[in-house]
Amino acid sequence: MPIHTIIFILDLSGIAVFAITGALAAMEKRLDVFGVLVLAIITALGGGTIRDILMARMPPFYFDEWIYLAVATGAALLVLLFYRLFLKLWRPLTLFDALGLGLFTIIGAQKALNANYTLAPVLILGMITGIGGGMLRDVLRGEIPFVLRKEIYALASLAGALVFYVAWPMAHLPEPVAMLLGAGVTTTVRLVSVKLNLGLPARKQES
Amino acid sequence: MPIHTIIFILDLSGIAVFAITGALAAMEKRLDVFGVLVLAIITALGGGTIRDILMARMPPFYFDEWIYLAVATGAALLVLLFYRLFLKLWRPLTLFDALGLGLFTIIGAQKALNANYTLAPVLILGMITGIGGGMLRDVLRGEIPFVLRKEIYALASLAGALVFYVAWPMAHLPEPVAMLLGAGVTTTVRLVSVKLNLGLPARKQES
Amino acid sequence: MPIHTIIFILDLSGIAVFAITGALAAMEKRLDVFGVLVLAIITALGGGTIRDILMARMPPFYFDEWIYLAVATGAALLVLLFYRLFLKLWRPLTLFDALGLGLFTIIGAQKALNANYTLAPVLILGMITGIGGGMLRDVLRGEIPFVLRKEIYALASLAGALVFYVAWPMAHLPEPVAMLLGAGVTTTVRLVSVKLNLGLPARKQES
Repeated sequence: MPIHTIIFILDLSGIAVFAITGALAAMEKRLDVFGVLVLAIITALGGGTIRDILMARMPPFYFDEWIYLAVATGAALLVLLFYRLFLKLWRPLTLFDALGLGLFTIIGAQKALNANYTLAPVLILGMITGIGGGMLRDVLRGEIPFVLRKEIYALASLAGALVFYVAWPMAHLPEPVAMLLGAGVTTTVRLVSVKLNLGLPARKQES
Repeated sequence: MPIHTIIFILDLSGIAVFAITGALAAMEKRLDVFGVLVLAIITALGGGTIRDILMARMPPFYFDEWIYLAVATGAALLVLLFYRLFLKLWRPLTLFDALGLGLFTIIGAQKALNANYTLAPVLILGMITGIGGGMLRDVLRGEIPFVLRKEIYALASLAGALVFYVAWPMAHLPEPVAMLLGAGVTTTVRLVSVKLNLGLPARKQES
Repeated sequence: MPIHTIIFILDLSGIAVFAITGALAAMEKRLDVFGVLVLAIITALGGGTIRDILMARMPPFYFDEWIYLAVATGAALLVLLFYRLFLKLWRPLTLFDALGLGLFTIIGAQKALNANYTLAPVLILGMITGIGGGMLRDVLRGEIPFVLRKEIYALASLAGALVFYVAWPMAHLPEPVAMLLGAGVTTTVRLVSVKLNLGLPARKQES
C-alpha cells in the first residue's frame, strides 16, 4: 500500500475518533441533535483548519473532498444512535483519541516539513493539528480546554512532533518510518500518562 | 432595482439586525459601552469574516467600504440609547433576526456558488455566514452558542441554503428568485419553529 | 538607533509583557505548566496573528523568526518559577501591560497604514493587535474578555491609533514621532483610567 494511501486512511480514522469525542462532549452538554453534528464536525476538522489558515492554504482541504465531512458526520450519527454504548467505551475511546492525537500531530508536522518550515513552526503546526479541534470543542461548550488543564496531552503531541523532526530531516530515516515513530511516541506518551494517572504540575489550591 | 442593489440593502439590514442582537446580548452581561459596540460589530461581521477567511478572501469586505461598520455601529448605538424600548421589541426582534439569518445564509451560499464551490462547501459557507457571528457573540460573552443549543436555528439556515442550491444551479431558476426562495425558507422555518415552540431533540437530563 | 530596531525592541517588550499576563491568568485557573506556556504564547502572539490573517499575511511572522516564540516562552517560564514575586508586581505589571497595549496598537496601526489601508481598517487592525491576544486568553480560560468588561482598555487602544493616524498621514509628522505619540496616548489613557479608577458606563444591575 503506498504511503499516501496509508496516511489517508489514518487521517480518516483520526477524524472519526475526534468527531466521536466532539459528539460525546456535545451530548454531555445537552446540545440538540444538530448542535451535536456541528460540534463533532468542528472538533474533527478544526485543528486542520487552523493549521491551514496559518499555512495560507485556504480554502480548506475538506471543501474539495466530501469524504472528510462524510466520515465526521457519520461518526457523530453513530454517537447519537448508540450513546449508551459509546459511554461504556471509555477505555477504547481513550485509546482511539490517543491514536487520533498521534496521527493528527504527525500529519500536521509532515505537511509543515514538506512546505519547508523550520523546527519551531513544524512543532507548532503539528500541535495545532493535534489539539486545535479539541480546544475549539471545549470553548464552544463553555469549558476551559481540556488539553490545557489535565494530564499530559499537549506535551504528548509536542514530543511526537519533535521525534518526527529528529527522525526524518535530521537522522534521514525514511519518511513513513519517521511518521510512524512520531505518531507512536505521541500515542504512547498519552496512553502511559492516562494509565499511570500522570499529570503535569499545576499551582495548588490555596488553603 | 438591479439585483445587486437589492442584495446590498438586504445585507445591510442583516448587519443592523445582528448588531442589535449583539448589543442586547452584551448589555445583558453588563459589558461597558465600548464592549457593547465591539461585541455588536463582531456579531454583525463575524460570520462573513470567517466565511471570507475560508474562501481565501482577505482582507475582509468591510475594510474597503465603511458603510458596513457604520451600520453596525449605528445599530449598536441605538440599542445603547433605547435599551428599554428594544427589550420590549422581543417579537419584532425575533422576526428581524430570522430575516437576518435568511439573508446572511443566502448571501454566503451565493458567494460560494459564484466561486464555483460544490454542494457541501456551499452549504457550509451559507451556514457559517448565517450563524458564525452569533456563535462568536455567545462565546465572547461566556455562553454556549445559542445556535447549537436551542430551537431550530442552524437547521433553518441549512434548509434555506439547500433550497437555494436546488433552485439555482440544479433547477435553473433565475438567481434572484432562487435567493428569495432560499432566504424565505430559512426565515420561515425559523419563525414557525419559534411560533410553535419547536426544538430538535436533545439528550434528557438524567433523573 | 534606526527606527526599525526601536520597533523591534519595543515589539519584543510587548510580547514579553503579554506573555506574563497570559501566564499569570493561566496559573490563576490552575492550568498545568504546559497549559501555562501555551496560553502565554497565545496571549502574546494572538493579536498579531488575527491581524495578519485579516491582512492576508500568512504564514505568521513568528514562523520565520524564532525570537518571538523564545521571548514569549522565556517570559512564561519566569512566571512559573517566580509566581509569588510576579503577584506582588501588580502595579508594575499594570504599567507594563499598558506599555504593551500602546506598543501593539501602534505596531498594528503602522503595519496597516504601510499597507495603504484607510482610517477604519487602520483603527480596527491597531485595536485587534492591541486587545486580540487578551481576548483569546480570556476566552480560553473561560472568562468574558476583560477588555470588553472593565475599565478603559479597548478605548485607550482606539484613542492611540486615532492619534497616530492624525499625526502621521494627516499632519505629516515624522513616522517615529507619530508612533511614539500614539503609543503614548494609549498607555497614558490606560494608566490614568487605572489610577483614577475610571470606567465606562455599563448597564446597572437591576435591583
